[in-house]
Amino acid sequence: MADTATILDFDALALRIGAILRRGGLSALHAEALARVIAAGERDGAKSHGIYRIEGCLRTLKAGKVSPDAVPELVDEGAGVIRVLAGGAFSPAAFALGAPRLAERARDLGFAALAINDCVHFSALWPEVEALAAEGLAALALCPSYATVAPAGGTRPLLGTNPVAFAWPRPAGHPYVFDFATSVAARGEIELHRRAGRPLPEGWAIDSAGAPTTDPAAALSGAMLPFGAHKGSAIATMVELLAGAMIGDLTSQGALDALGTTALAPRHGELILAFCPKRFAAGRPGDPLAAGEHLFAAIVGQGARLPSQRRFQARDRSAREGIALSADEAAMLDRLEALGLEAVD
Amino acid sequence: MADTATILDFDALALRIGAILRRGGLSALHAEALARVIAAGERDGAKSHGIYRIEGCLRTLKAGKVSPDAVPELVDEGAGVIRVLAGGAFSPAAFALGAPRLAERARDLGFAALAINDCVHFSALWPEVEALAAEGLAALALCPSYATVAPAGGTRPLLGTNPVAFAWPRPAGHPYVFDFATSVAARGEIELHRRAGRPLPEGWAIDSAGAPTTDPAAALSGAMLPFGAHKGSAIATMVELLAGAMIGDLTSQGALDALGTTALAPRHGELILAFCPKRFAAGRPGDPLAAGEHLFAAIVGQGARLPSQRRFQARDRSAREGIALSADEAAMLDRLEALGLEAVD
Repeated sequence: MADTATILDFDALALRIGAILRRGGLSALHAEALARVIAAGERDGAKSHGIYRIEGCLRTLKAGKVSPDAVPELVDEGAGVIRVLAGGAFSPAAFALGAPRLAERARDLGFAALAINDCVHFSALWPEVEALAAEGLAALALCPSYATVAPAGGTRPLLGTNPVAFAWPRPAGHPYVFDFATSVAARGEIELHRRAGRPLPEGWAIDSAGAPTTDPAAALSGAMLPFGAHKGSAIATMVELLAGAMIGDLTSQGALDALGTTALAPRHGELILAFCPKRFAAGRPGDPLAAGEHLFAAIVGQGARLPSQRRFQARDRSAREGIALSADEAAMLDRLEALGLEAVD
Repeated sequence: MADTATILDFDALALRIGAILRRGGLSALHAEALARVIAAGERDGAKSHGIYRIEGCLRTLKAGKVSPDAVPELVDEGAGVIRVLAGGAFSPAAFALGAPRLAERARDLGFAALAINDCVHFSALWPEVEALAAEGLAALALCPSYATVAPAGGTRPLLGTNPVAFAWPRPAGHPYVFDFATSVAARGEIELHRRAGRPLPEGWAIDSAGAPTTDPAAALSGAMLPFGAHKGSAIATMVELLAGAMIGDLTSQGALDALGTTALAPRHGELILAFCPKRFAAGRPGDPLAAGEHLFAAIVGQGARLPSQRRFQARDRSAREGIALSADEAAMLDRLEALGLEAVD
């Protein structure tokens, strides 16, 4: 980019972010786990999950809405469900603790689940499903957020943006990965329209009276809508049930009630399912990963894109050329480094 | 209805359908399992999965594309994945064989999966997830179909209509259930528009050149589109991977290649995941089913509908008043009973 001020490699960027987070009060365990997830977002050109997130993290810390140092605890009774109690801390360290056991159990049983409870969820879900795909597993991750989305046919916020992420391992190169909100748009996109004074596309949101609106401010005080009408609404509801109610954690409404604001990161749970294709295909003709490749070739062969393709292109570019920060971004890191929690309200 | 000729209770209707299917050559095991699924569709007012389906079943039998009498075989190595080899027969008997073991294993491990291979898939998925919800389990069922849907951004059929069904148990009354195609519309709906000479809504389909079309005939020779654009397309792709490639069975393209037509029922596999909420919530505060009820009350409380509500209303009506067949429907059953396979091309 024209105004590139700083080029860092992944480890150097993660170190800088980690130093900021430690200065903000996070323990080394959490600062490092979070820093690597944020650096991965920046590396992948996923700006909304990159260094932009640091301030939100510091705000949540400053507000006392996240434990800076709770040590995650693994609960494993040897069955198909593994649990990590995050103790009110950010989720990445909890996932890092549970993931190796989840992968091992999925290989043993063919299929296993990791429930993370009492975590403050912060990151995209793709780092998690990709970590499992790197172990040769397919993975599906679900989590609620806080109530900002009306169910289809409804009038008020109740569901979260409730992301769903999936990864499938590929023998060479990046896995097949998708990770999306089950709302039509992310809340950040509505905020960007508001700042730019642009109307929203039809179908994104309703106002506080439950009527369709294209006014971003009315949408922010009303509710977002699920993608795909009643089908997306049903999937978002399933996320509340499986990754909220079922694992004994908060739904999106509960998370909003507990937090009282959408300005800080919400606390709730997360559910990650891991599948071992080799075990599922045992005794059957053909190789499951080869069948996946056949499908991907057919998708790309008709000119369609695989999800995450742009993100992986950015990742490859970052590996070759380093991660480029603009002058403004570099200045933001400097400021956060110097001021710590003083930098945020 | 005004032209109601016949009122039957569920068992009487299932007996009549079973007799037709046996006369068509199905073994008693398959005839009974299939008849109960078809009668359930009719009972629930789900006309597209009711007695309308009998002819398609007989056509598939007559074409030799389904085994009339293969005995499904359970393969269980005591882990989290149970398999039923359906031997090229219809799926309901395979599910009926695997379901009790799946439920038992989900209670033991918290979480288990049933892969059905080499089945001719015929029914809606809701009877299966509802059967598991009746055991106090949450369930998610996925299956490919045959290639009639283009991936988002693509130009040609590749994915199936790939239904996804989910059920969550409720302490009283019917479970929370959804069951939908991951295409915008079902193929039957496009066919209905064609017969009525009505244009399709925008966004349902593309023609054989890959251009958007509202002409039903052009859509039938082109491709349907996934619901929810790239998000629905990603979910449909996940169904191909998990319920096709991963379980060592056909994708929708493979099923179409093997069958050579969309006029008969396709042969492939199916994947059903079962979750034990009590195990997932163990040691956590609160009751997962109570949390589900809280969510459903909030959805209904803002005037939104729960999925399957109309189907359950029809079911309750059928329980009170019997299942009403029109004169045409009753005549169809008489004709199929009298002619057997002679009744279909």
